[in-house]
Amino acid sequence: MATSVSVELPASIQLPTLSAKYEHLRVNALRTNATLEAACAWGNTPDGGMNRLASNDDDKRVRDWFIAETSKLGCHHKIDAMGNIFAIRPGQNNALAPIGLGSHLDTQPTGGKYDGILGVVSAMEVLQTIHENNITTYAPLAVIDWTNEEGARFPPAMLCSGVWGGAFTTEYGHSRTDPEGRTLKAELERIGYLGETECSFQANPLTAHFEVHIEQGPVLDQAEEAAAVVKGVQSIRWYNLGLVGREAHTGTTPMDRRSDALLGAAKMIVETNRFVTEGEIAARGGRATIAVINSSPQSINTIAGHVDFGLDIRAPADSDVELIEAMCRKRFAEICDEIGLEMTFDNFWVSTAVNFDPTMIECVRSSAREIGCMTELVSGAGHDSVYTNKKVPTAMIFVRCRDGVSHNPAEYTRPEDCAAGAQVLLGAYLRYDDYLRRAAAKM
Amino acid sequence: MATSVSVELPASIQLPTLSAKYEHLRVNALRTNATLEAACAWGNTPDGGMNRLASNDDDKRVRDWFIAETSKLGCHHKIDAMGNIFAIRPGQNNALAPIGLGSHLDTQPTGGKYDGILGVVSAMEVLQTIHENNITTYAPLAVIDWTNEEGARFPPAMLCSGVWGGAFTTEYGHSRTDPEGRTLKAELERIGYLGETECSFQANPLTAHFEVHIEQGPVLDQAEEAAAVVKGVQSIRWYNLGLVGREAHTGTTPMDRRSDALLGAAKMIVETNRFVTEGEIAARGGRATIAVINSSPQSINTIAGHVDFGLDIRAPADSDVELIEAMCRKRFAEICDEIGLEMTFDNFWVSTAVNFDPTMIECVRSSAREIGCMTELVSGAGHDSVYTNKKVPTAMIFVRCRDGVSHNPAEYTRPEDCAAGAQVLLGAYLRYDDYLRRAAAKM
Repeated sequence: MATSVSVELPASIQLPTLSAKYEHLRVNALRTNATLEAACAWGNTPDGGMNRLASNDDDKRVRDWFIAETSKLGCHHKIDAMGNIFAIRPGQNNALAPIGLGSHLDTQPTGGKYDGILGVVSAMEVLQTIHENNITTYAPLAVIDWTNEEGARFPPAMLCSGVWGGAFTTEYGHSRTDPEGRTLKAELERIGYLGETECSFQANPLTAHFEVHIEQGPVLDQAEEAAAVVKGVQSIRWYNLGLVGREAHTGTTPMDRRSDALLGAAKMIVETNRFVTEGEIAARGGRATIAVINSSPQSINTIAGHVDFGLDIRAPADSDVELIEAMCRKRFAEICDEIGLEMTFDNFWVSTAVNFDPTMIECVRSSAREIGCMTELVSGAGHDSVYTNKKVPTAMIFVRCRDGVSHNPAEYTRPEDCAAGAQVLLGAYLRYDDYLRRAAAKM
Repeated sequence: MATSVSVELPASIQLPTLSAKYEHLRVNALRTNATLEAACAWGNTPDGGMNRLASNDDDKRVRDWFIAETSKLGCHHKIDAMGNIFAIRPGQNNALAPIGLGSHLDTQPTGGKYDGILGVVSAMEVLQTIHENNITTYAPLAVIDWTNEEGARFPPAMLCSGVWGGAFTTEYGHSRTDPEGRTLKAELERIGYLGETECSFQANPLTAHFEVHIEQGPVLDQAEEAAAVVKGVQSIRWYNLGLVGREAHTGTTPMDRRSDALLGAAKMIVETNRFVTEGEIAARGGRATIAVINSSPQSINTIAGHVDFGLDIRAPADSDVELIEAMCRKRFAEICDEIGLEMTFDNFWVSTAVNFDPTMIECVRSSAREIGCMTELVSGAGHDSVYTNKKVPTAMIFVRCRDGVSHNPAEYTRPEDCAAGAQVLLGAYLRYDDYLRRAAAKM
């Protein structure tokens, strides 16, 4: 799925190794956390969380700070038409596109200090570590702030990495509006971040993309590991289901003469859960959830004649999502027959599985093992890396977050885990940079 | 539960018999249906239904008509402080309180032509049949229009039979308001039906109460019988349940690390249904329904952290309602333990089982069998007879309605079934009147 267009790599290159000269390199844990605090100076909330919607005044202030800080570390900047900022530190071979280390500085309206911000801060710490050690990397390095990843102000999510990756046009991105009707283009212009660089991989390429992100799930917390290799992003399909039974009086209608749409929905929820908690689908990480449900009429003594619900199916492999869907369709139809219901089953959104680049994954794996982290995950949520992966080799690093809580002021990652994520990023990045150097030498 | 205070009946009386002189008596089917049409002349809607809320202008017009029609049949009238109208035809022993044949002329806002109206019309047909045959009954006969049975304009339902039966005070009944804030007392005064007779069994007694009503359920329709004996009204309890789990991302949260409140609710719905569709509880007519459900947050990719739902449990016997409740409490607690949920389980309304008077039931049974109707039911819905039963021997007759549909313009009962209900009422009434005559003779 990921394709490398900047460099053609011979298969003979052994992967990955870290040059002996870099083995001593360590990120600075205190500095990493100080940078994180600095990055949260604008838009923080009294409850310890963040409210920094894309392209608002606080987003402008943190962007100004980001440019100032990365300028001190030898970077020049490209700002593209979607406001994505590339802080570029030259390397030995500046004909090569930079290796990107990116994430986002915008947050949910009731978000935390780690989602996205930790990814940019980790990249800044890698930059600073390299800079203070006077290292000349082979490829240039780009620390990237992707605009409006959350999509909380300008839906959809991952909008501007999506434009860069070709999923959306710039025109589409510019025309997205917030609830007050202001367009993203106008708001970027207002804060001075409507850049002149065309927003696309073609006009402003990268060679690869690494991203650190909090897990937003409980696996690392329970595994008691600080960081994990992320091998891809789950396949996802969303469905709206409608059931029509027959409204009738709960008192006067015998149990065997009912067409109870809510009973049907309940059986479907229980069966769906069973499909993904038993056998091979469970072992392969299939997930299925029904969270939204509405019944009508809302009367305690009238049997529900109509029930609508949403179904969310996920798995690392597209084929498992398809299998779970097929199991649901078959079993739901049987339940409808048993109870006497009509059903509509609408698949309104599909996101196919994302498989990150094996070489990039190996760089992360090797680096993570150095600090004792063995967990490997498939992301359950979307990230900017989903869209960079459409154009360049991509991989991600997840960092433990307490109780898996995210999109909430209570979101929390321990200082030592923030530093661990940056350390894994440093090692993975240096491995990939060295890989490019060796690949070029062989060509 | 029912107590006879007007007459003390020796146990030696054989029950029930119909005097040979009445065996030829038949209601007039055409007239019954013509009276029904006449009773629907005010407040009918273009879709074939009715919209005649209690104490509105159309209710005044139908009351005026009711008084005029029953006056022609030898009745004088008592109107009580809740607007209940008693059209009384004297009997042989006018020291005895009348046998009431009653129901209601008000409707739901989108109601049908049969709910309540058929009961009053059947009683009018019995009156007319007796009158045209120059029969002098033993006890006086009262055809009764109970005010505001639906409670659609002035909640609660069965308000004015409830005042008569001592369940509510007159002050409470008077102070009920409609959505525009008008009190029932003011509206009764406005239409000229705030009567001077005190509204109570003590001030305005009956000896017994029969009521014809459409079934509002599908049993007779499926049994292919026109009418049924109603032996009582189900025991009912209503509950609000709240489940609290943990909101979490559907993509990032493994299946075995969830506290999914909607999954818990679904299991409870399935289990509750199982309790009342298997074994002895099913055989004894237990019913349980969950029709109202709400989950939050309403987000397809956030596991439901909160679910509230309503539970309606019914059975002919209070002990079965208690048993079903106990089974739910036990099993729901287990489900909460399995999934990791907190539960609240609030029983906010209780209506104990109503058992109609055995003598009255036997009168209905004997009369129904004469026209080939063998079905015996326990009402799943409340009726004015629930409250008359608190003071005097009461029984009901159900008439088949198409598909069990009620509270809907599509509500429909065939003309021949309307007449059948009136015929069963005639026979039951005459049997009870004869019973009173024979009882008095023995005393």
